[in-house]
Amino acid sequence: MSEVAPRIVVWNENVHESRGDATVIGHYPDGMHAVIAAALHELLPGAEVGTATLQEPEHGLTAERLAQTDVLFWWGHAAHDEVADEVVERVVDAVHAGMGLVVLHSGHYSKPFKRLMGTTCSLKWRNDGQDRELVWAIAPDHPIAQGVPHPIVIDQQEMYGEFFDIPRADEEVFLSTFTGGEVFRSGVAYRRGLGRVFYFSPGDQEYPVYHHPDVQRVLANAAQWAAPVSERRELTADPHPRGWFTTDGAGTQGV
Amino acid sequence: MSEVAPRIVVWNENVHESRGDATVIGHYPDGMHAVIAAALHELLPGAEVGTATLQEPEHGLTAERLAQTDVLFWWGHAAHDEVADEVVERVVDAVHAGMGLVVLHSGHYSKPFKRLMGTTCSLKWRNDGQDRELVWAIAPDHPIAQGVPHPIVIDQQEMYGEFFDIPRADEEVFLSTFTGGEVFRSGVAYRRGLGRVFYFSPGDQEYPVYHHPDVQRVLANAAQWAAPVSERRELTADPHPRGWFTTDGAGTQGV
Amino acid sequence: MSEVAPRIVVWNENVHESRGDATVIGHYPDGMHAVIAAALHELLPGAEVGTATLQEPEHGLTAERLAQTDVLFWWGHAAHDEVADEVVERVVDAVHAGMGLVVLHSGHYSKPFKRLMGTTCSLKWRNDGQDRELVWAIAPDHPIAQGVPHPIVIDQQEMYGEFFDIPRADEEVFLSTFTGGEVFRSGVAYRRGLGRVFYFSPGDQEYPVYHHPDVQRVLANAAQWAAPVSERRELTADPHPRGWFTTDGAGTQGV
Amino acid sequence: MSEVAPRIVVWNENVHESRGDATVIGHYPDGMHAVIAAALHELLPGAEVGTATLQEPEHGLTAERLAQTDVLFWWGHAAHDEVADEVVERVVDAVHAGMGLVVLHSGHYSKPFKRLMGTTCSLKWRNDGQDRELVWAIAPDHPIAQGVPHPIVIDQQEMYGEFFDIPRADEEVFLSTFTGGEVFRSGVAYRRGLGRVFYFSPGDQEYPVYHHPDVQRVLANAAQWAAPVSERRELTADPHPRGWFTTDGAGTQGV
Repeated sequence: MSEVAPRIVVWNENVHESRGDATVIGHYPDGMHAVIAAALHELLPGAEVGTATLQEPEHGLTAERLAQTDVLFWWGHAAHDEVADEVVERVVDAVHAGMGLVVLHSGHYSKPFKRLMGTTCSLKWRNDGQDRELVWAIAPDHPIAQGVPHPIVIDQQEMYGEFFDIPRADEEVFLSTFTGGEVFRSGVAYRRGLGRVFYFSPGDQEYPVYHHPDVQRVLANAAQWAAPVSERRELTADPHPRGWFTTDGAGTQGV
Repeated sequence: MSEVAPRIVVWNENVHESRGDATVIGHYPDGMHAVIAAALHELLPGAEVGTATLQEPEHGLTAERLAQTDVLFWWGHAAHDEVADEVVERVVDAVHAGMGLVVLHSGHYSKPFKRLMGTTCSLKWRNDGQDRELVWAIAPDHPIAQGVPHPIVIDQQEMYGEFFDIPRADEEVFLSTFTGGEVFRSGVAYRRGLGRVFYFSPGDQEYPVYHHPDVQRVLANAAQWAAPVSERRELTADPHPRGWFTTDGAGTQGV
Repeated sequence: MSEVAPRIVVWNENVHESRGDATVIGHYPDGMHAVIAAALHELLPGAEVGTATLQEPEHGLTAERLAQTDVLFWWGHAAHDEVADEVVERVVDAVHAGMGLVVLHSGHYSKPFKRLMGTTCSLKWRNDGQDRELVWAIAPDHPIAQGVPHPIVIDQQEMYGEFFDIPRADEEVFLSTFTGGEVFRSGVAYRRGLGRVFYFSPGDQEYPVYHHPDVQRVLANAAQWAAPVSERRELTADPHPRGWFTTDGAGTQGV
Repeated sequence: MSEVAPRIVVWNENVHESRGDATVIGHYPDGMHAVIAAALHELLPGAEVGTATLQEPEHGLTAERLAQTDVLFWWGHAAHDEVADEVVERVVDAVHAGMGLVVLHSGHYSKPFKRLMGTTCSLKWRNDGQDRELVWAIAPDHPIAQGVPHPIVIDQQEMYGEFFDIPRADEEVFLSTFTGGEVFRSGVAYRRGLGRVFYFSPGDQEYPVYHHPDVQRVLANAAQWAAPVSERRELTADPHPRGWFTTDGAGTQGV
């Protein structure tokens, strides 16, 4: 519980890297998570930044670890189905209790994101190497949009286009356009339970997107935005006796 | 696909009634679903209205039947866990493809609703027989709020109170207050995939709420609102070739 | 009060046309309002469609006429300041009482729109003849997005880009992209009082945008969507005596 | 520009007090503004807190003063019409450029609030001395709801009830109920231009509401929330040349 120095875990399925995809390894020799974690470490002095991957026991996301995590980043693409349902429920429960979650790129189809959105999270796509992505802020005072140009220019990116089947965002921060003319809601923020969820679409594995300083700044901003503001706690269905709040104010309480 | 005469199925877990709860049977001798279905039949001439219960094979919600259902009503309370996950996924998929869903009262904790909301759906409650519920419309031009007084007065109801852990509603239609002073977002509307979801909280089994003409009017309005406006179809992640939409407009398409 | 056959008035400042702009007159020899009105007349059988212009007494918008208008379209650009404040207040009051308003293109800077939005309504723009506009629906089941391709392709249009200083929309229907890479929230819907407001940005006077059949379809859809659903009435600050709603339901009332 | 120590001006029409209303003077011998300002001063160490009233030249809100104000509080009731339009436009412009505005109680009908909302801001009311107001947070992680009980109990208050004709809030923070059974959206947050607006309804002049510690805490939270996060600047309609953002990133800029 700290906006000043959140405890962050960057989770990566680490499949393209560990299974020998030369392009991805070229961009991320130690895995995408290593580059993201290093950027967060640099941009958020004082933050504790660790990593976790699919290949670790319990995917590196034990109950103990999640209990010590303020903000979890999630990158997955090729192995969504390999993520154990038990871990997914654990992540979802942690978000409901207050943990922040930042979902990246093809993580739109990850189990935790779909569980938290309640929609199909489907979209349109194209990856022919010819699309430049421009990321436009439409919420100029939003903390996640601070310190970056308008637009952010990403020279090469996979196209993600509408219709993107997500719930109406609580806050719509970024819209992206692509060389081919498509549009995409690329930065959307939600509350789920006591936790905050931010989805940010730039980050295809075939391009060095997470080396881009503006993208790194957005991720650091998102970590600070998503960090919990109160103690983590479970939301339950509680009976309230009549007049519980009126006894000298003694019965009043937090939400 | 018809706003004029939707095909409706009223699903009820039918547990209080079938397991011998005298109070509930007193209000609903043939089950709550029978009273709701009769009201919809009367208020929506031309609509096809059927029922289904937990006790039927596949809970009465086979793939064939859901494919022929425009709007599904859902009442559950004591047996959420007895609903088969396979049927839940089927219902969720149908909503994503366009089916309307109207969730009632303690259905806030049903599996389909929690899956579609992505939150805990927890709330506060009290049932001591002393609460009158007043249902206030705060969206006066909303189709679900037409034809009912402001407020709707329900002489006896269980108290449901905030904090209600739901996503921000796409449309907030009703707020309720209770004799004890509590407040509740009692009528909230969402889009999920191509389907519409409406949650309406009045309807505890211990009071004859579904005999109330204003409540019946709200349910009929909700059925019309939730009915799909286009053919049901699956939302998928489709590749879009460059320039797909520019060939004489031939490539353009529905969302 | 009729969704079936709304009474529509298309208001146009009619300045480019009446002051001799050859390009605009080329597209719209009888004024832009004539083309829009003809399209609405054709697409909405039964609707009464009239026009009004800045040059008429009271700009053609007398109290009597507004009282008989279900939906007002508004196109203005060069002469926002010439619109009398008294007429503006009359239009705003009519919207508050239930009249629909559809604001087009450079009408983003019109007095009625700014009054109803409460923001500056500023935006970025470019008009060098080289932008194609693509209009993407992101609310696929919205009535205003029915019957048009995805995207709508407008071969030439002025670029309108973000940041567009509008309030968060109640419903975000369309997003546009331009050849230059910009993005714009081009179709946004609001409730203001008992009235509905839709802003649709395509329609620069230098291009024949209102001859485009898909644009015409959007305008017809918008007219139906914006038509009032109840009798027009003034919203006032009313005192409510204690228990006003409990006397045999006699005190309950519409919102 | 400071969340740490905002420069605050508490504006009060000061009419009940200055024109001899004994009840109000009893609660607020030096004016309501004095009590509010003292509370903010105490709860926000480092903040500069001043006051201004209707009776001062330019109502105490010169251009120079507004330029040095991060957050303006506004209480008005009996003399909305006496506020000069020129000052109203100045306040609205300052909000658009980034100044925060916190509107209190009967300020719902003030000129600046109505200008910024674009609706009638009408509501229902009753003041017979018999209503207790309960203020419930429905956004538990919202910064304005921190540090107060759930609900806040205000022993006596005027009833403000729905339908409250405001635009859909960007963030709905508080809902209030009253002894008479009514409900009201009592804490609603908006962005307008680059500025933030918060409306908080408790505070009728006949009761000592602004002496209530929980109410004071909400006001202090609101001041921090509404304080600008960037330099104040005017939003204008700017032309953007083709490719303005692509020249080595040199053309990119803040929103």
